[in-house]
Amino acid sequence: MSAVKFHITTRSGNARTGVIATPHGPIKTPAFIPVSTKATVKTLDVHDLQKLKAPAVLANAYHLYLRPGPELIAKLGGVGEFMGWNGPTFTDSGGFQVFSLGFGLEHGVGKVANIFPDEDLQGRASQTRKRLFNIDKDGANFVSHLDGSKHRFTPENSIEIQQMLGADIIFAFDECTSPLHGKKYTAEAMERTHAWAKRCLQAWTNRDKQGLYGIIQGGAYKDLRIASSEFICALDTPGIAIGGSLGKSKKDMYEIMDWTIPVLPEDKPRHLLGIGEVEDLFGASARGIDTFDCVSPTRNARNGSVYIRPENGGTAKNKYSINIRAGKYSQNTEPIDPGCKCFTCQNHSRAYIRHLFVSEELLAMRLATIHNLHFIFTLMAEIRHAIQQETLHNLADNWQINP
Amino acid sequence: MSAVKFHITTRSGNARTGVIATPHGPIKTPAFIPVSTKATVKTLDVHDLQKLKAPAVLANAYHLYLRPGPELIAKLGGVGEFMGWNGPTFTDSGGFQVFSLGFGLEHGVGKVANIFPDEDLQGRASQTRKRLFNIDKDGANFVSHLDGSKHRFTPENSIEIQQMLGADIIFAFDECTSPLHGKKYTAEAMERTHAWAKRCLQAWTNRDKQGLYGIIQGGAYKDLRIASSEFICALDTPGIAIGGSLGKSKKDMYEIMDWTIPVLPEDKPRHLLGIGEVEDLFGASARGIDTFDCVSPTRNARNGSVYIRPENGGTAKNKYSINIRAGKYSQNTEPIDPGCKCFTCQNHSRAYIRHLFVSEELLAMRLATIHNLHFIFTLMAEIRHAIQQETLHNLADNWQINP
Repeated sequence: MSAVKFHITTRSGNARTGVIATPHGPIKTPAFIPVSTKATVKTLDVHDLQKLKAPAVLANAYHLYLRPGPELIAKLGGVGEFMGWNGPTFTDSGGFQVFSLGFGLEHGVGKVANIFPDEDLQGRASQTRKRLFNIDKDGANFVSHLDGSKHRFTPENSIEIQQMLGADIIFAFDECTSPLHGKKYTAEAMERTHAWAKRCLQAWTNRDKQGLYGIIQGGAYKDLRIASSEFICALDTPGIAIGGSLGKSKKDMYEIMDWTIPVLPEDKPRHLLGIGEVEDLFGASARGIDTFDCVSPTRNARNGSVYIRPENGGTAKNKYSINIRAGKYSQNTEPIDPGCKCFTCQNHSRAYIRHLFVSEELLAMRLATIHNLHFIFTLMAEIRHAIQQETLHNLADNWQINP
Repeated sequence: MSAVKFHITTRSGNARTGVIATPHGPIKTPAFIPVSTKATVKTLDVHDLQKLKAPAVLANAYHLYLRPGPELIAKLGGVGEFMGWNGPTFTDSGGFQVFSLGFGLEHGVGKVANIFPDEDLQGRASQTRKRLFNIDKDGANFVSHLDGSKHRFTPENSIEIQQMLGADIIFAFDECTSPLHGKKYTAEAMERTHAWAKRCLQAWTNRDKQGLYGIIQGGAYKDLRIASSEFICALDTPGIAIGGSLGKSKKDMYEIMDWTIPVLPEDKPRHLLGIGEVEDLFGASARGIDTFDCVSPTRNARNGSVYIRPENGGTAKNKYSINIRAGKYSQNTEPIDPGCKCFTCQNHSRAYIRHLFVSEELLAMRLATIHNLHFIFTLMAEIRHAIQQETLHNLADNWQINP
């Protein structure tokens, strides 16, 4: 008996609305899933998530494996129970973190290297850096970004870890390539991902409690994406994810979806990994994606980038957001997004939020995060309603988006 | 007509319960007032404060004068309106910040010097440092800890600033000495404080909207404290505060209260500035203090030091607290303080809170702050009830405290 079931309620073009039934309740789709990387949606408590009507949260197997460890979380009842959240949960397999951190180090990508707290580790030659990450047929070795300790992920232990973490929806362990990888390497990585997906399916024993999603790879190469879609769809999993590099532009990303989605079965829920700008929510929903997750609404909030709707000046160009730190808001008595019903906008002025950011008060990040998630969840409800009413293109027009 | 009125409801020994009526509602006393230095109780939103039944908040004129500026806050309706808080508000005059920062710099106190973001400023010779703060008969010059800009506070502009900030209860501008100052200097500073108090009274024009408290100084010297009490009490202010150095130990602090309080009129509310450890709440309430404020419950929370009651192991020696970061809590499924009704304890385990602290997740500070304030407010309600029932000494016995 499958723990995760999907039911389509309406269709409009390629878009659809539906419900994913999970052991911790239903998710109305299409849905944006906020990330709770280390078992917390940064700055928010679970009451906030309930008030915001968050459909689910997505935690990360890599981070939780390193700290506090899956044994502890299993002992405390799984990631949802651990964080006090009684709604649906996802865990990412850790593939993206293992490979993106490894790749970042190999290429001396500053942003990634910077997260290493150990100066000695940062200062070493690139030859040493390469040793921080290596891959073989069977899995991947990596070092912890926390303490430099050595670890290994395989399809089997990724699933074992995710079973201990106990999320409702889990993902196969995949090799995540970057837009900098060429076709040859991307094809090899895809083949490994396919072999690993089969092994994940074998390792997945908690079928009555957790639903496994396979992950389609293939980078920005049409034939690879189609081959990967066919391979992953042939596996008996309750859901499908589209992962890896989605190219270098929104155009690339939409092309990849347009190659991939026609291959997918209608009846399985589709998750797009790591996507979540406002335009993308339209583009992905219109193409028949059911769920997506992304750090950007919450990360942007913590940086002071807060969403505004088109009627208040939001455009694709400004990414429907303002930088609330800007001096021009210092005396602005309006809420961030006039008309918004979120706690932040109902209680606070732009001037106050700006003051909190400029004064480096932690409440700033919390209030901005509440606003940004409320904004995204409200937009997703409007998108679902528009699909049901067959008016998604009108809604997109109002947002000056051509999905 | 006075904006602030005090009404004593019960007396028990020197202790009393009462109600301070303010334009933004009543404060049941004795009450602990949490600090909202920069117009936010760090990490909490106003809904949290309402749920916690915070009796009032105390913001800081020095910080808000420097940023965002009193003009802006006045324009936005005052500090309460600015931060979205509709309960009673206090502002500290800024005296303590001007003198404690200045004194810290003069003496090269690292903790204070460290708050200067400008490296050049930190690196200069102590001769230059001394120029960062100087005092004359008329007021005090100081440099901003934010940008090194030069400023001057006088009794007149401190009151003007506090009138623009618009809190219900404001304080006279005083010179705050430290336990390192000798008697001669402490006496001189006290005389300045008295002269300034008279000027503050003159400058205070908002009498129908805000209540001014004079501040008693005199360090740890009995004759000075008594002289200062007599002087300040003779001024026509609706309340009295005890400020400055309270000595080097709890014994000193209690002695200072025992010298001072008998001089005070019964009918004016008494505020003890900067006090708020658990033992102190008993000691001050038993002596007839009506309100006190302190950073420690909230600052301790942000450092992972969270309160526990005697039945869960809290003692005067451990300051009724545990360090939730400790490894021994990593698998502990109990709430921070079993039996506690706060949001944090109702929803989260010690193991989870510890994980959030160790992972440097901001939610950790928020959850610990909610717990610590709930703990203190609950204890204050018990203290008020015990005073009404004439059982304060029994309550103190249960806490193994000899107030």
